[in-house]
Amino acid sequence: MTGSTPVAIIMGSQSDWATMRHAAETLDALAVAYDARIVSAHRTPDRLVSFAKGAREAGFKVVIAGAGGAAHLPGMTAAMTSLPVFGVPVESKALSGQDSLLSIVQMPAGIPVGTLAIGRAGAVNAALLAAAVLALTDEALAERLDAWRARQTDAVTERPDTTAN
Amino acid sequence: MTGSTPVAIIMGSQSDWATMRHAAETLDALAVAYDARIVSAHRTPDRLVSFAKGAREAGFKVVIAGAGGAAHLPGMTAAMTSLPVFGVPVESKALSGQDSLLSIVQMPAGIPVGTLAIGRAGAVNAALLAAAVLALTDEALAERLDAWRARQTDAVTERPDTTAN
Amino acid sequence: MTGSTPVAIIMGSQSDWATMRHAAETLDALAVAYDARIVSAHRTPDRLVSFAKGAREAGFKVVIAGAGGAAHLPGMTAAMTSLPVFGVPVESKALSGQDSLLSIVQMPAGIPVGTLAIGRAGAVNAALLAAAVLALTDEALAERLDAWRARQTDAVTERPDTTAN
Amino acid sequence: MTGSTPVAIIMGSQSDWATMRHAAETLDALAVAYDARIVSAHRTPDRLVSFAKGAREAGFKVVIAGAGGAAHLPGMTAAMTSLPVFGVPVESKALSGQDSLLSIVQMPAGIPVGTLAIGRAGAVNAALLAAAVLALTDEALAERLDAWRARQTDAVTERPDTTAN
Amino acid sequence: MTGSTPVAIIMGSQSDWATMRHAAETLDALAVAYDARIVSAHRTPDRLVSFAKGAREAGFKVVIAGAGGAAHLPGMTAAMTSLPVFGVPVESKALSGQDSLLSIVQMPAGIPVGTLAIGRAGAVNAALLAAAVLALTDEALAERLDAWRARQTDAVTERPDTTAN
Amino acid sequence: MTGSTPVAIIMGSQSDWATMRHAAETLDALAVAYDARIVSAHRTPDRLVSFAKGAREAGFKVVIAGAGGAAHLPGMTAAMTSLPVFGVPVESKALSGQDSLLSIVQMPAGIPVGTLAIGRAGAVNAALLAAAVLALTDEALAERLDAWRARQTDAVTERPDTTAN
Amino acid sequence: MTGSTPVAIIMGSQSDWATMRHAAETLDALAVAYDARIVSAHRTPDRLVSFAKGAREAGFKVVIAGAGGAAHLPGMTAAMTSLPVFGVPVESKALSGQDSLLSIVQMPAGIPVGTLAIGRAGAVNAALLAAAVLALTDEALAERLDAWRARQTDAVTERPDTTAN
Amino acid sequence: MTGSTPVAIIMGSQSDWATMRHAAETLDALAVAYDARIVSAHRTPDRLVSFAKGAREAGFKVVIAGAGGAAHLPGMTAAMTSLPVFGVPVESKALSGQDSLLSIVQMPAGIPVGTLAIGRAGAVNAALLAAAVLALTDEALAERLDAWRARQTDAVTERPDTTAN
Repeated sequence: MTGSTPVAIIMGSQSDWATMRHAAETLDALAVAYDARIVSAHRTPDRLVSFAKGAREAGFKVVIAGAGGAAHLPGMTAAMTSLPVFGVPVESKALSGQDSLLSIVQMPAGIPVGTLAIGRAGAVNAALLAAAVLALTDEALAERLDAWRARQTDAVTERPDTTAN
Repeated sequence: MTGSTPVAIIMGSQSDWATMRHAAETLDALAVAYDARIVSAHRTPDRLVSFAKGAREAGFKVVIAGAGGAAHLPGMTAAMTSLPVFGVPVESKALSGQDSLLSIVQMPAGIPVGTLAIGRAGAVNAALLAAAVLALTDEALAERLDAWRARQTDAVTERPDTTAN
Repeated sequence: MTGSTPVAIIMGSQSDWATMRHAAETLDALAVAYDARIVSAHRTPDRLVSFAKGAREAGFKVVIAGAGGAAHLPGMTAAMTSLPVFGVPVESKALSGQDSLLSIVQMPAGIPVGTLAIGRAGAVNAALLAAAVLALTDEALAERLDAWRARQTDAVTERPDTTAN
Repeated sequence: MTGSTPVAIIMGSQSDWATMRHAAETLDALAVAYDARIVSAHRTPDRLVSFAKGAREAGFKVVIAGAGGAAHLPGMTAAMTSLPVFGVPVESKALSGQDSLLSIVQMPAGIPVGTLAIGRAGAVNAALLAAAVLALTDEALAERLDAWRARQTDAVTERPDTTAN
Repeated sequence: MTGSTPVAIIMGSQSDWATMRHAAETLDALAVAYDARIVSAHRTPDRLVSFAKGAREAGFKVVIAGAGGAAHLPGMTAAMTSLPVFGVPVESKALSGQDSLLSIVQMPAGIPVGTLAIGRAGAVNAALLAAAVLALTDEALAERLDAWRARQTDAVTERPDTTAN
Repeated sequence: MTGSTPVAIIMGSQSDWATMRHAAETLDALAVAYDARIVSAHRTPDRLVSFAKGAREAGFKVVIAGAGGAAHLPGMTAAMTSLPVFGVPVESKALSGQDSLLSIVQMPAGIPVGTLAIGRAGAVNAALLAAAVLALTDEALAERLDAWRARQTDAVTERPDTTAN
Repeated sequence: MTGSTPVAIIMGSQSDWATMRHAAETLDALAVAYDARIVSAHRTPDRLVSFAKGAREAGFKVVIAGAGGAAHLPGMTAAMTSLPVFGVPVESKALSGQDSLLSIVQMPAGIPVGTLAIGRAGAVNAALLAAAVLALTDEALAERLDAWRARQTDAVTERPDTTAN
Repeated sequence: MTGSTPVAIIMGSQSDWATMRHAAETLDALAVAYDARIVSAHRTPDRLVSFAKGAREAGFKVVIAGAGGAAHLPGMTAAMTSLPVFGVPVESKALSGQDSLLSIVQMPAGIPVGTLAIGRAGAVNAALLAAAVLALTDEALAERLDAWRARQTDAVTERPDTTAN
């Protein structure tokens, strides 16, 4: 891992990959390099500490962290790095991600986590927000991002396909 | 701090003391020694790590942790010690402690936090639960705890004072 | 039932077993003996009274109680024993366990129930918390618990399996 | 206490009287006798058992039970008597009675509690519902109840007082 | 319809029958006669008025009303009869009956609806509560109700069937 | 009351006037005539029926209905008139208008209530929406409404007054 | 598109059509012409601006806008036209439309959106409400609407089909 | 306004300044220049369009947007710029900011808003997150930010002041 990998995607468990792969795929589409890892705040706290404290030196610019339930990963990462941290609330079973959302977004003053929507949309948007940050100093990426957004706009048809479902 | 202090009361900030002092006062009433500290998961993560990893060796038997909002202190402590951890959701401003409660209680399988009620009642009960744990091997404390509960029962009058507002 | 069975697992109905068996299996994995019973606070209140009042004398050290909806079993058990009681909110049909959670965790000052997460995770964690309590005076169990946690930590792979689902 | 006292008003603590006195006052207005008592499910479980099991023999026809937070009093009373039990969720501090409401209303099939609104309105209505039940076999009470309701209807002015606050 | 049909079961639509039939079946089991009707507060307001105003004269003693969403049927019925009205919140699609519950239970002071749990459990319990009311002046029914409850108690096995699911 | 009064403002009780007067004042500002009345769905159901059934003939074009808690007034009015009905959820004490909102907005298919925000904003907006409807065939009102909106836009300063509290 | 198309149905994405087609079908049943379009507030903001600003001139009388999640389409449309705007909260995946509902209904004073129920019922009712508005000055439509409602009333059977599911 | 003002703080109304000034003060403390403006998505949609579309050209690098209730400002800004947008849910009256939070955070895939906590903490953290983004390419700011965080850490006392309230 070198300075050429600007984004870290971390998640609390393998099961979060089903959500977080949408962040990965979005970064792929924007040709932004990333490193995807499992870092469990609860089951691997030492890994969390070493990842978070070493993230800047490892060359990362932005951290995307996804977790569900009592989701402590984004906030604890933000506690140990001053890199921008974006949090993705993974949809939980009983409470549909309401617990994940509140556990991530309601951070106390002093330690910010920029929080995205629950689930897939949040993962996509965390990638787009990371790209927007990187694009501030990367003209080529800014153009790719604008092109991505333009394609998205163009893809919205004028009228609904009333024959669908 | 020695083995003679069985309970640690930790809290995320000075403002949590207004809630957590009820845990302290309850332990006082039961003659259980405790050490009260501020350990902010977010603002003092190193202190959190050293406290949690050293808690058992420091002689603590039970940890009571109170925090509000995206309350990560109880769960992160539990991630780094196998001592019993009891969590107290401190009432938050906007969401009245619903965020605190979910952030503490919805821990993933593998790392338990025994969670009490939001606010003062939870702080009192965390102390009583800690005492119940210690009383398993402390006859004298078991008797003090039973006496405390008996006094509580006796204090419930048969009829409401209908002259009170 | 003798003093050699330190944990009672009680639940409000047969249907709760689907959740509570995860507590049983976790205790099995830790070689902690338990007794699993159905005690319905509402349909068998006499059984509740006799169980709760006799729990200490029966040799139990910790009670794990699971129930759903207007879940009164953990709190009423705690009202009649000073043993530590850990509550597991079983996921309910309409409200997904939000009713179970609030009915268990929001106990008034004076009668504590250490509450775990809704559903399977809560059942696993109730067992782990019971084990943590027992381990305070059982070196061998403490070692088994630490080993269990170490295995859990080791099982977290560094990177997500990106070929899964 | 004799058969001439058809309604029992029970509540979990003195502080609930501020709510439950509205039930008492409504019964007073309807000239229905009642007996008001403090019965704490958690702090005085023996009193609960003896009250609930003896309620029918004591001559009560209807039980009104008010409690807050993890409100177990109405449901546990209903578990031990087949008299009609009406529950009043007392407004709790942090969660404004949402916990009280769910703890009372979400009873499992088999043990009913007829639940009223949170707070004062619920207390008034529990009294009216109790009166409605008693009025089924008490012509004079039926007339008083109808008169009460007619006065209530008459008291609704045609137009708002637009000079008020 | 004569005085020999003490219970009316009304519901807002055919689709509510899937829930309300559990009230009917419970009354069948207790040999309590009932009349089941569809009365939509919104689509058949005239039917609502004539039903509610005529309910007492039609010989009904208790009304059980089930509805979902913005459930106005129980409360509007209670507004037009002083018979006891018990409300059953039918589980709604998007909000799982939370809307139904609040629309039924949060009645203003003056017009009571005794509200039961969301869904099937509420329907069963509305029937049991109606039976409890009728049993106040029907010895034979009181005995059948007690027997029903005793059978319910007896049906709770001591231990979970650990081979199930 | 004649055809020259196009808007009826109805509310469940005098206490709702504190909210609904904002609808009245907004209509005053737009020079739209209205008639403000108290119509309690629960305490004056006959008045509700006669108002709702007679609303069209009385010359009203739009009905604004405000109510709190289990708020049945807007929906029941809509059940008995095919005039457009706009509902204003009045903020309730315990649940802050969440019950009012769900009771008004979650109407079943077939009987619409156009629902506005909880409290004062909703009352203002109900008046604006009524005006928008009337303005479809009233050029002068359309101009007054546009002017009102233009003044509103103009009143938004470019920068915050950073000296205010 | 001419003045002969009084209703615009707009929606945030193709996937909303599954909900919004119920508005279309209801307008079809009432022989009210409409134009259905996809206008994404977020992905096609220019289209939103041109649609909303041009809606009146395009001859529309009423706008029905459906969207889910952080649903900004109805409110932003209302910000740029003084035509009546009716909002339909589309059921979202994680939060079941609670986010959609609050994002649409909680508009600030000044810009009204008449909000209907979450999902299909809301779409049907938006169409009915639009028709009610148009019927104020269209006798023939008023009659069709009354006939539609009468058929709806007639379709409610007296008794539930107890043989269904 | 030139390229030397990297942060725009926009808010929906003057009343939001009470919250958003905490973002301003935090940026002041970090010596980061900002421009604070009122941009109401609903009352000044043209200003919104011209601000959002011109933000990049105006030299801004990051936009902080605060709004309450049906809070559309952050999301609509994000729809019209690819700059990073951070949203602050302002605490609303009836729903305490739950509506603001969901309206801001639940953005659909494609248009990201990094959302902070409700109220003051969120405003502080939006400033810190903006600074973290800018610090990626501003060594001096990175040092000031690290110093700010170090001071914050140092300010956490070891023990609670037990004499405070």
